[in-house]
Parts: sequence; structure tokens; C-alpha cells
Amino acid sequence: MRAVGDAPRTFTGWVGTENNRIALVTSSAQEAAAFRASHPGLREMDCRGKLLMPGLINTHCHAAMTLQRSYADDLSLMTWLNDYIWPFEAKQRPEEVVLGMTLGVAEMLLGGVTSFVDMYYYENCCIGPVDALGIRAMLGCSYFDSNAVETFRLIEEAVERASAGSGRVRIAVAPHAPYTVSAENLTRGKELADRYGLNLTTHIAETQDEMRIVRERYGCTPVEHLDRLGLLDDRCIGAHCVHVSDSDIATLAARGVTVSHNPQSNMKIASGVAPIERLRAAGARVTVATDGPCSNNDLDLFEELRTAAFLQKSSTGDPTALPAWEALRLVTANGARAMGYADGELGVIREGALADLIVVDLCKPHLQPVHDVVSNLVYCGKASDVDTVMVDGRIVVEGRRIPGLDLAGLYDSVSRALERITAAR
Amino acid sequence: MRAVGDAPRTFTGWVGTENNRIALVTSSAQEAAAFRASHPGLREMDCRGKLLMPGLINTHCHAAMTLQRSYADDLSLMTWLNDYIWPFEAKQRPEEVVLGMTLGVAEMLLGGVTSFVDMYYYENCCIGPVDALGIRAMLGCSYFDSNAVETFRLIEEAVERASAGSGRVRIAVAPHAPYTVSAENLTRGKELADRYGLNLTTHIAETQDEMRIVRERYGCTPVEHLDRLGLLDDRCIGAHCVHVSDSDIATLAARGVTVSHNPQSNMKIASGVAPIERLRAAGARVTVATDGPCSNNDLDLFEELRTAAFLQKSSTGDPTALPAWEALRLVTANGARAMGYADGELGVIREGALADLIVVDLCKPHLQPVHDVVSNLVYCGKASDVDTVMVDGRIVVEGRRIPGLDLAGLYDSVSRALERITAAR
Repeated sequence: MRAVGDAPRTFTGWVGTENNRIALVTSSAQEAAAFRASHPGLREMDCRGKLLMPGLINTHCHAAMTLQRSYADDLSLMTWLNDYIWPFEAKQRPEEVVLGMTLGVAEMLLGGVTSFVDMYYYENCCIGPVDALGIRAMLGCSYFDSNAVETFRLIEEAVERASAGSGRVRIAVAPHAPYTVSAENLTRGKELADRYGLNLTTHIAETQDEMRIVRERYGCTPVEHLDRLGLLDDRCIGAHCVHVSDSDIATLAARGVTVSHNPQSNMKIASGVAPIERLRAAGARVTVATDGPCSNNDLDLFEELRTAAFLQKSSTGDPTALPAWEALRLVTANGARAMGYADGELGVIREGALADLIVVDLCKPHLQPVHDVVSNLVYCGKASDVDTVMVDGRIVVEGRRIPGLDLAGLYDSVSRALERITAAR
Repeated sequence: MRAVGDAPRTFTGWVGTENNRIALVTSSAQEAAAFRASHPGLREMDCRGKLLMPGLINTHCHAAMTLQRSYADDLSLMTWLNDYIWPFEAKQRPEEVVLGMTLGVAEMLLGGVTSFVDMYYYENCCIGPVDALGIRAMLGCSYFDSNAVETFRLIEEAVERASAGSGRVRIAVAPHAPYTVSAENLTRGKELADRYGLNLTTHIAETQDEMRIVRERYGCTPVEHLDRLGLLDDRCIGAHCVHVSDSDIATLAARGVTVSHNPQSNMKIASGVAPIERLRAAGARVTVATDGPCSNNDLDLFEELRTAAFLQKSSTGDPTALPAWEALRLVTANGARAMGYADGELGVIREGALADLIVVDLCKPHLQPVHDVVSNLVYCGKASDVDTVMVDGRIVVEGRRIPGLDLAGLYDSVSRALERITAAR
């Protein structure tokens, strides 16, 4: 079996798991035999012609917005939000959001995403369904000023409910953005996060409109504003960070903030190009994410990854920018750190790490030949090449199927929900 | 069955073929029944939950460069060419190029590409193998000054050999570029093309280096240079056209040149961004293509298409730029015109058109729900969603397999060829 490891980059050998962790990583047939002998009843998987690698980590999405996939495209941002997205969302019921979330998680699991950070409303209703699907998640309960107090209360309940589950699903505090949430409600969200030891995730410096509004209201940049309020630390995941000055970049790096880069969304909505190479050079923790499936329009992290690499090369004029191996770390090891895991605990193939692993089938014309498996993965790999997915030591996708999930039934339920929503006034 | 048609955009109904052409397009059950009655022994395909659409047309690639896929990435252009690509190519044998071509055609067919325009050397050896795979192709015999005379001779032979085949495979004259081929050899290539009624395809205005060289040598832009030499007409397919002035754009439009836009290659090599929206506004015929699989690194036209849309939105700052339906026409109807087919003869679902059709399976999480099937296709569709492919009335992919092609054997042959090439001095 060929595997993408930590250091060295790739090796051929054996990987064994025990409970929810990786217990063996070796190229020695003897060590593999010893592991086999000490683990009677071990189920073995022959991965010849395939590649074993850490599961992908998606640090920013609105998974339930699968319901609005391709609902309204090729529009200006304000037309899109005012005339389509917000009226649609106002009519959604919690059980419909759960359907959208289920569809989104199914898409992510089938595409090799083993962990994701979400941001939406009715997240409290999604804890059980997401946990049952077997994925690892951080569900960010999103709020504006209008529903801040209510959301703070829901977060307290949600933390309790999540802690009663598998431990794979955790809660985050998710103020929408510095231009849509008051300083007071940003601060209160941060206090709540600190009280429960939660991550905080928010949109930062996504559009020029946001820059203008924050400048007019607070006389500074969104990064400066959030920093003054004390929101920026290594438990903060900032989505987008498109419009950041050199000084903002230094602040994001110094505070240990995770930058969640969403290149396809930024391109499609024409938000601008995030200076990822300058952020990386400054030492900021950069990750890559899909954003919601109605601004992208999918949850395919393989495609997002290569778009990130292509966009940095194109925008800097330097074909050596964001090379394949560096890009791959953004959706594995860096994603794990963003979600609060220690170095080596997730997003790597290392003994002792959590067993979140995927198997990619390399026997496809678009993945042959294999001069450099990491280049093939980053520049040619597809969500549909993922064959098997393990999260927390448990197989959740096998032979490109999610055992126990009736997809055809789900599509029908989604269709019926959409009929109701679009007919409602 | 749901189908992407010509006008209206989509309809639900029946499509029938007879020999190599579309003989029925209807939403009337009675007409479908009559067709069935008059065609005894008709094989029917139930496409409920699927989408029938014209096959995709890839107007620029170097398919045999699958052999160099991921061979050398993340390098500056001149290091890449001088230290990797050119030394590799100098060692390739004709039968090895045929292997690379076979792998490339297999990848394209499985991804719904039914026609492609190629540009490489040893194309004369590829005619039979490409024809046998059942795809529609225009094989451009590429030359520099060093091998121009030899290539002109080979083209004459190739034209004869291709005309003895199915008619699906045709030959084109392919001078490498205005900065690598002398004015004399450009003109002689054009004369040859005109003598045999062939298309001419070449790289135009791809990089700033090319702009500088042509300016120094001829005191003008590549477009001006080619126009003065008489190369620009509606049988010319110009790949890239990244660096074109307003005047160049007007010339390309006035001459009826096909612009073959290769967004992923341009991004990865950091060549610049082609002004596709300005070209379209000026009335130029724009198409989208993958370029070679070692600068991209695949032959996936679905991905290329959405990258084209994303890149125009991002580079113009306008999210309404290159909308989904317009984008789709670039790889269907416009591609057909580029290859010399009359309006309505290829790239559309219309009675009388050539039967180059693909079936896309919509029952996948990333293609559900279906608010707008064209948006779903352009923004979420994957090569791997293509289920069935028909070219010239014949099924060449069924159930995601190419009947009669031993892919595992092909991968082995490619591996052995690479061992020889990389060991050779």
C-alpha cells in the first residue's frame, strides 16, 4: 500500500488502527506480522493500486445550504442575498435544515472530508443527525444582532447535548461578521466561547463593502476591530480574509488565528483574491475550505485545494507559489490545528493520531501514471476517487457508499421540502 | 428523460438516433411511439434521473502528454521546459506517444469529451489508434522550424491515411507559435492547410515572454503578425490569446478566429488571465479547453469550464460575468463551429445533428437538488458523473467503462514505457 504520510511524504507499507487511533505505521513486514498476531480477528484491507492518506478537513462551510445549491447563480451579491437567499432561509424549518445538512455531510464523506467546521442556524438541531453519520464536526451556531441573545442560550444547550454524544461533534460560537454583529455581541460571543472552551468562527474581510462599512463605523479594518475586541486568538477561525493589509497579516499571524481560504467562493462571488502566499510567509495558519454549496456550488475539497494553488500562482504571477505538498498540508495538518487538535493528533498518518483516514483509488486514467502521487492528488484528484473513508477508527464510506444511508430517499425528502419552501409565502 | 437542448435550454422527452445522426427530438409521447414503431429492434435507454446533453468539445490539448502528468510541477516555465519536458520528449518513441494518446483519449471519453483538437508530434502514428477508440478528433501535426519540412511531408501522408478511416479523425496543421516558427514556415503551413482544406491551430499570445520576442522581432503583437501573414480566418484555432489588446480582439473577431481558452493551464503556469468577456463582447468565437495534462494536470473539461466562469467573474470583479448557460455553449456549440461543423450540425440536440451525446447521472449528492440543471452541470458536474457516451451514433462508454479497452494493461504498458524513457540518455 502506498500512503501519504507526514515525514517522509510518502511510503509503502502497513497502517493499523486500534479503537479510534492509528496504532501501527510501518514499512516492515515483520512489524506488520507482529501487529497481526497481537490483534486476532483483525480486518485487513488490501490497498495495492490505492493510496491511504489523512482525511480532508474543511474549515468553513454552510453544509445545509445544499438546499439552495444552484438556486440562484450569476447574480450580484446583494440581489442574490436580498431576492433569493434570505427570503428562502426565512421560510426554512429546522427539520428541513437537517435534511440539507444530511445531504451536505453525505457529499463531504463521499468526497473524503472527514472533519468540517460549519456555520449556520438550527445547528442545535443537527447535532444528533451529524453525529449519527459518523463525521467529525464543529457546528458553529451563527448569529446576527437580532438573534444573538437567543443563540447564546441555544449554544449553552447545544454544548450539553453535543457532550452527551460521541465526542466527534463539538459546538462553536459563530458571529456572522464584524460588519453585521455589534461590538457588544461580538464580545459577548467571545466570553461565551471562553467560558465553555469553544472555538469562535466568523467571516472576516470578505468583500470591499465590508471594508467600507467597518471603516466608516469603527475607523479601522475588520482585523483591527476584532483584535481590539479580543476575538483574535488561536481558537479563532476566520473565513475569507481577502482584504487584509500587511499589518492585518502580521496581526493574524501573531494571534495564531486560522485563516480559512475559500478560493472558489471568492472567485464566483468576485470578492477578490486572498493573499495566501503572504499570509503563509508571515507565519499565519492557512487552511482551505469550500464555503457553502450555494456559492461554489459544491463541497468538493479536492477541487478547492487545486483552485487555491492555481489562484495563488495566477495572482502572484509565480508558478512556484503554493506547491502541491504545501497545499495538501492546508487541508490536513493545518485543518486539524484549526479545530484545536495538537500537532500530530489529527490530519497525519502517525502512531497515536486519531484514525481519520481515506483510501483513494489511483487506478483511473486521470491518475495515471504516478510520477508524483502528491501532484496527482492535488492537481488531478477528484472527490469521486475516494473509495473508503474511516473516521475515528470506524468505516463510514466503503466502495463509495455510506452504509445505512438511503440516498434516493433523501433526494425525495429534499425535493418535497423544496416544494414546500418555494410555495410558502 | 431530462435533456439539455438548444432552444429551449432544457426539456423532458425522447431523443432518437439513426445511423450517426439525431433523428428524433420530442416531448410528445405519440411521436416517440411512432419512431419506436418505425424502428424495429430499437435499443432504448431509460434516462430518468439522468441528463442527456451534447458531448463536450475540447479545442486544445496535447493528449499524449499524459505520460508527463505530474512529472514536473510548481516550477518556473523555462526550468520546466528546459530541464524536464523537452529532454523527456526527445527520448519518446512513436509507440510511446501512441500509449500516452490512448490514455488521454480514455480519460476524455470517460469524462464526456466526444471531440478534441490535438497538437503534438507523431500525430501521424496516432490516427488509427484514435479512430479505433471511437472519439471524434482533429489531430494537429505540430512543428517548429527545425522539423517544418519533414512535418509538411508527414501531413500530406496523414491526410491520406485519415481520409481512409471513419471520417471522425481529421488532420490539422499546427505551427507551434508565432515566436517559435519563422514567418516563412507559418506561411507555408497556411498554404498547405488551404490546399487540403485543413484547419490550422497554433498557440497565440500565451505569455509575456512571447509578447516581448514578437515585438522585438516583428515590431507588432502576435495577432498582428499572424494577421499580416494571412493565417487568421475562421479555420484558425488560436490557443490561449491571454495577452491581446483591444485592437487584437477586434481582429480576432473580424477574422472569425476561434479562441481556445485554457484557464487552468494559464493559472498554473501563471501566464495571465485571458480577457474572455471582452472577446465575447466583441463577437469573437470563444471555446474552452484543457491544454495538455502536464500543465493542468488532467483532461477534465467540466472542471475547466467552471474555472473559466470563476476566473472571468474574479478577474472582472463582476459575479454576473460568463454565466452558466453561456459557459456551457463554449464547450458544445462553439466547439463544434471551431472544428468546422456548420451551425446545428454538432454540439446541439437537434434533429439532423451528429449523434455525439452524453448521459450524466444526476443522482449524486453533489448534483442534488436540481433547482437549475445547467448551473448544477457547470458549477458541480464532474467528469465522473458521465455514465454513457455516444459518438457518431455509436456507444463508446457505457456504465463508466470503455468496452474493449484493457485499462489495467494500458497502465502497465505506460509504466514500462516510462521506465525506458527515464532510464534512457
